[in-house]
Amino acid sequence: MKAIVNVYLKEGVLDPQGKAVHHALESMNFKGIQGVRIGKQIIINLAAANETQAREEVKEMCETLLANTVIEDYSFEIYA
Amino acid sequence: MKAIVNVYLKEGVLDPQGKAVHHALESMNFKGIQGVRIGKQIIINLAAANETQAREEVKEMCETLLANTVIEDYSFEIYA
Repeated sequence: MKAIVNVYLKEGVLDPQGKAVHHALESMNFKGIQGVRIGKQIIINLAAANETQAREEVKEMCETLLANTVIEDYSFEIYA
Repeated sequence: MKAIVNVYLKEGVLDPQGKAVHHALESMNFKGIQGVRIGKQIIINLAAANETQAREEVKEMCETLLANTVIEDYSFEIYA
């Protein structure tokens, strides 16, 4: 099974990487950009008996390693 | 409009960050992990007249700044 996990900074948390890209795009004459935020996308191939088990495992991975839940949120989808 | 851009290393390009996460997960007793790859997710809020224009602009952003097309692929979706 394949899990696609997105980890992104919570609203209100300063995102310096996003700000840097925002300024870079503006200096390259892209107009009308209102905001840029950058997160991580983690693709995990895993062997799990079923989707429910995969979902539980990936949730635990997120809570314990993949996301810093103090400043980051995460979401994920499981594909067979 | 909102553009969600995913940038990830091409197949066959070594992903040391993914490998590190893979090993970390295994050392935390997660079983059955076959592979981990890590990419970037870039969320851009932009003012564009219509979806076609937004799509063109974001494609150019990807080609010129967001992705290193030698080693990275990208995909994106536009939401109104």
